[in-house]
Amino acid sequence: MIAAILGTTGYTGMLLARLLADHPQVDQILPASSSKAGRKLSEVDPGFQDPGGKIPGDGALLTLEFVLERKPDVVFSALPHLESARLCAPFLADSVVIDLSADFRLKDPQTFQAAYGTPPPREDLLGQAVYGLPEWQAEAIRSGNLIANPGCYPTSVLLPLLPVADGGLIGGEIHVSSISGISGAGRKLKNDYLFCERSENACAYAAGRRHRHVSEMEEQLRFKAPGASILFVPHLAPLRKGMSSTIFVPLARPTTEAEVAGLFHSAYGGAPCIGLRADAIPQTAEVRGSNRCDIGWQIEGETLMLFSVLDNLMKGASGQAVQNMNIRMGFPETSGLSLAGEI
Amino acid sequence: MIAAILGTTGYTGMLLARLLADHPQVDQILPASSSKAGRKLSEVDPGFQDPGGKIPGDGALLTLEFVLERKPDVVFSALPHLESARLCAPFLADSVVIDLSADFRLKDPQTFQAAYGTPPPREDLLGQAVYGLPEWQAEAIRSGNLIANPGCYPTSVLLPLLPVADGGLIGGEIHVSSISGISGAGRKLKNDYLFCERSENACAYAAGRRHRHVSEMEEQLRFKAPGASILFVPHLAPLRKGMSSTIFVPLARPTTEAEVAGLFHSAYGGAPCIGLRADAIPQTAEVRGSNRCDIGWQIEGETLMLFSVLDNLMKGASGQAVQNMNIRMGFPETSGLSLAGEI
Amino acid sequence: MIAAILGTTGYTGMLLARLLADHPQVDQILPASSSKAGRKLSEVDPGFQDPGGKIPGDGALLTLEFVLERKPDVVFSALPHLESARLCAPFLADSVVIDLSADFRLKDPQTFQAAYGTPPPREDLLGQAVYGLPEWQAEAIRSGNLIANPGCYPTSVLLPLLPVADGGLIGGEIHVSSISGISGAGRKLKNDYLFCERSENACAYAAGRRHRHVSEMEEQLRFKAPGASILFVPHLAPLRKGMSSTIFVPLARPTTEAEVAGLFHSAYGGAPCIGLRADAIPQTAEVRGSNRCDIGWQIEGETLMLFSVLDNLMKGASGQAVQNMNIRMGFPETSGLSLAGEI
Amino acid sequence: MIAAILGTTGYTGMLLARLLADHPQVDQILPASSSKAGRKLSEVDPGFQDPGGKIPGDGALLTLEFVLERKPDVVFSALPHLESARLCAPFLADSVVIDLSADFRLKDPQTFQAAYGTPPPREDLLGQAVYGLPEWQAEAIRSGNLIANPGCYPTSVLLPLLPVADGGLIGGEIHVSSISGISGAGRKLKNDYLFCERSENACAYAAGRRHRHVSEMEEQLRFKAPGASILFVPHLAPLRKGMSSTIFVPLARPTTEAEVAGLFHSAYGGAPCIGLRADAIPQTAEVRGSNRCDIGWQIEGETLMLFSVLDNLMKGASGQAVQNMNIRMGFPETSGLSLAGEI
Repeated sequence: MIAAILGTTGYTGMLLARLLADHPQVDQILPASSSKAGRKLSEVDPGFQDPGGKIPGDGALLTLEFVLERKPDVVFSALPHLESARLCAPFLADSVVIDLSADFRLKDPQTFQAAYGTPPPREDLLGQAVYGLPEWQAEAIRSGNLIANPGCYPTSVLLPLLPVADGGLIGGEIHVSSISGISGAGRKLKNDYLFCERSENACAYAAGRRHRHVSEMEEQLRFKAPGASILFVPHLAPLRKGMSSTIFVPLARPTTEAEVAGLFHSAYGGAPCIGLRADAIPQTAEVRGSNRCDIGWQIEGETLMLFSVLDNLMKGASGQAVQNMNIRMGFPETSGLSLAGEI
Repeated sequence: MIAAILGTTGYTGMLLARLLADHPQVDQILPASSSKAGRKLSEVDPGFQDPGGKIPGDGALLTLEFVLERKPDVVFSALPHLESARLCAPFLADSVVIDLSADFRLKDPQTFQAAYGTPPPREDLLGQAVYGLPEWQAEAIRSGNLIANPGCYPTSVLLPLLPVADGGLIGGEIHVSSISGISGAGRKLKNDYLFCERSENACAYAAGRRHRHVSEMEEQLRFKAPGASILFVPHLAPLRKGMSSTIFVPLARPTTEAEVAGLFHSAYGGAPCIGLRADAIPQTAEVRGSNRCDIGWQIEGETLMLFSVLDNLMKGASGQAVQNMNIRMGFPETSGLSLAGEI
Repeated sequence: MIAAILGTTGYTGMLLARLLADHPQVDQILPASSSKAGRKLSEVDPGFQDPGGKIPGDGALLTLEFVLERKPDVVFSALPHLESARLCAPFLADSVVIDLSADFRLKDPQTFQAAYGTPPPREDLLGQAVYGLPEWQAEAIRSGNLIANPGCYPTSVLLPLLPVADGGLIGGEIHVSSISGISGAGRKLKNDYLFCERSENACAYAAGRRHRHVSEMEEQLRFKAPGASILFVPHLAPLRKGMSSTIFVPLARPTTEAEVAGLFHSAYGGAPCIGLRADAIPQTAEVRGSNRCDIGWQIEGETLMLFSVLDNLMKGASGQAVQNMNIRMGFPETSGLSLAGEI
Repeated sequence: MIAAILGTTGYTGMLLARLLADHPQVDQILPASSSKAGRKLSEVDPGFQDPGGKIPGDGALLTLEFVLERKPDVVFSALPHLESARLCAPFLADSVVIDLSADFRLKDPQTFQAAYGTPPPREDLLGQAVYGLPEWQAEAIRSGNLIANPGCYPTSVLLPLLPVADGGLIGGEIHVSSISGISGAGRKLKNDYLFCERSENACAYAAGRRHRHVSEMEEQLRFKAPGASILFVPHLAPLRKGMSSTIFVPLARPTTEAEVAGLFHSAYGGAPCIGLRADAIPQTAEVRGSNRCDIGWQIEGETLMLFSVLDNLMKGASGQAVQNMNIRMGFPETSGLSLAGEI
């Protein structure tokens, strides 16, 4: 099985390369980079190792054109929003495409326009794109050829909210407060992401409708709970990786923590990448390096509080993309993915 | 002017010692410690310096008994909850007492019992205790002899909420999500506070009614907005210092960001320790080491979002205690307190 | 194949459990803990996952007695120094024992006495203990039943120094300056290891002969370079994991960087866990989570500078222990061990 | 007294603005910035506060031309190397200039050429430049009009070495291993300084003669110990601020720790910014935010180990610059400078 990566030198691309190098069903990796083609990947990223020799030749980064000709079975696009759709579309002729950008995530072009200030770059392909949240879309993923890998914030918010929406418990505006590790912003060279700016610093940013991920959360949530609305405040804290979401849900009717537990267990009973934590509020360190999303819940009066944690580069990005590949290709769902956290 | 510190070797006590050493109106410092009396403070805390020679003798930590006899003008108690009240009460005979513990913060003994599982240790003194939030209680502080210094979470939540309560804008349950630096937990030797447990980790904890500080917030808030209720979720993130609170307020009536700005400006127009940030969401780094609390606000639909940041050891504890001393003793309000952040 | 862990709830034990859970040749794991036997490991350590169901029963931690009766093939002891030898010795009857403590590392009982202030706890067994530095002792490891897993500092210093000693290049006292992540101190509850004490802090400690690991380095080094002496200064910096050693070697004779490169290539040509970095000084982030030790070198005048980096919990402890198991049991040397770093 | 800052928006300029705002003898601050003139400083740097209203007008950043016309008493140049000399030279006509760049630090133009690949930008002024290490050059500083503020690494290495050189103890090549906080690199937008690249990472870099600061150390050291040579290895660790230097000095003759202590006490007996630590190895946290450099020492066999810590932005840059201003202007040496560390 041949897997390609477009945009190998950002954090999600670097992690994809490592996951695929250790993936038992992947035989060959084709790592592409528009800016660094020709240089060896292990030089650009000295933490990368390819003991199995899965990258052909001398391990050099390839051009997109070269990769296109090789007709890989699966193509992961870790390219930036608004570039990705155009560059990965040609691969659809011969490959399954898993796009980690936002370009195919929103079904409604108007919503995309409102969030990104421009129409979806390949609106013609939106119809065939599958929203790749594996715990909810496994069937569509199994037969999809264009999989839009969800954003990290939406994954951390939708996984706890969807069973609650299914249970008819949402009774008003949902308030979400999330904390993200800095790698969530990618490897962008911006003053804000310098060590000295982010260390010993915490803050909210892009609150409310201003954050692009809100549209994605709301669109998916409304398929189950029409009219539901989310007020979302992301925060940055000095972590490399990790996302913690705290969600306040006004209850539509009186319920119990046991009933909520029941909803989660029936939604996620067999899901290997979901950890249900009846006992304690989960911590990001417990899923660091893991493809799990751990979920806790608590009721106070008429409000349900939900807590989720995940590793924004794993279940929030590259790990979930590999999970999608596994499902699409018929491999075991967690093949090549660790469920244990890093120490 | 003689100032004493009870419990000098925790983080708030250590910071008090440094602030007082540089305070222009303080002539002598009497640092007490029950566990380390007799040892030099600069040995126990090598970061401490006393270039003005304000500590008598060789700079050694003193016993509480010794300090009591010296009848200091002001006594700061940085002792643990449930110990502090009993140990600082004897000082009331001759000194102004500023207590940094929770022992005198709650007016209602029942509320104290519910939060701490035991009656207030000196219920007889509750009546004379002043809640030391300087921007709201300056008059009472000026004549009080027992000042209960507010908790860091309540300070960060009440400063943005009180003007909004005053304006009659609170229309339903308030949701608060706060992030605290680890020093907020004090210098306790607990597995949870080890570097390797907290670094690269973020989590919610003690959500809802379980956190003791909620009673304090609600009691103070209800003096202005009877019946108001707060659902509070604190979080830990890998910072030494800093507190960021994000507050969702359901609006009682339609309003504008300009009206909210007006409320803040009339409440805090002359307040040197409040920074109003119409332009941007504030960040904890901007008030690190400062005695400021910076506040931002934003309206989305029928919900007002408030953002506050402060340094939990400064405006959230020791800095606010010195501010209280300044007001009580008739010194300039920010004497000995930096308003600029640390680089 | 059955592997047991004694002392599963410290950092090295927790990591061993995770490595063994993913290890393709390990069928069953017996995790023992004297203090927490009876509790489920996944409760004590929520980051741990056992998707393969390798821990028998309900996943509970076991007593040492229970494990002893099961006669595991391999026993890892992650118990504290001075306790480990006595508690793991009984397992020698039926199991290969890999001891991660210092108890069997020193050949010379006098040296042990000098470093630890007490004789080696099981001096009678020192003769049969193999020093488990796989790149140098593979043959002895293959047939050893008691393997003393090296310390993290000695591993990071010996791997770069031994080829240089072999080449006869050591011409005087060696100066070593190492930086360690905080997990190197284990999971001890000590004021010094609190987040607020170590964050934004760097320091040297236990300089010179005072550090116990110096004896271990010197004893091993002198087998190749009799009389060699090391002046060693360890440092702490605010990292969870990672060790960087900078070594100044006075050259015994003029040489070139090319000759030094040759020494390294002939010593480590086929070694999967050594990365030779002719191009650049390695960084700990490049081996974070990996079982690699990366080495760089540079000559200035008559001094050779060596640079090594490793993950103190992996190649510096648990990863190296698994590497030793692999060699002893005839598995591929890096079975179950990642060579790529964590993102 | 009017003080100006050229280059106010880097870390050293930002800190200078804060120190001067609180400085009792400074009446007016003129903050210049070539890139951001016209914008308010408190907008560019929200952590900055000017409660005394020392910046004229509305607090906006000024052009260099404007500042030049105002003939400030003292001008601090926090401009980049190779730019600073040319831009601050015109101010020499009417102002004392304290240059924080490297442009005037080296006396020997050849040495500058070798280190920077270009001749000193204003070689004509080198003769009148005073090397502003206050503990050693106080007399020259008192009458100098062009003060070259030392680099952070040289300060941390020279302060412990100079008394030892004075004592004739240097007997061979000196090995120095230093750890620096990331702010030592300034506020440069470089991939290497991103949070995700530096967090959980430690490494040596620019070892040996490759680091520009070595020339500065050696030139100054040789004025006392002709021919002395230093092999220097700087390291980065995930701290914002702080510098720890560990120095190995081969002793020229047998000596004792008491004799070394004597050298330090006679060199620094009255120096307010030096902390002599006979008892323990100092830690950077103990001088964080302070203008102190703390020094420890230890002898092992024929080698003397020296340990120094300082805050690279304070005693390593802006704090030392203010100390130089104080000496030059006849103010108390530590006026406006904290000797206590930040909590």
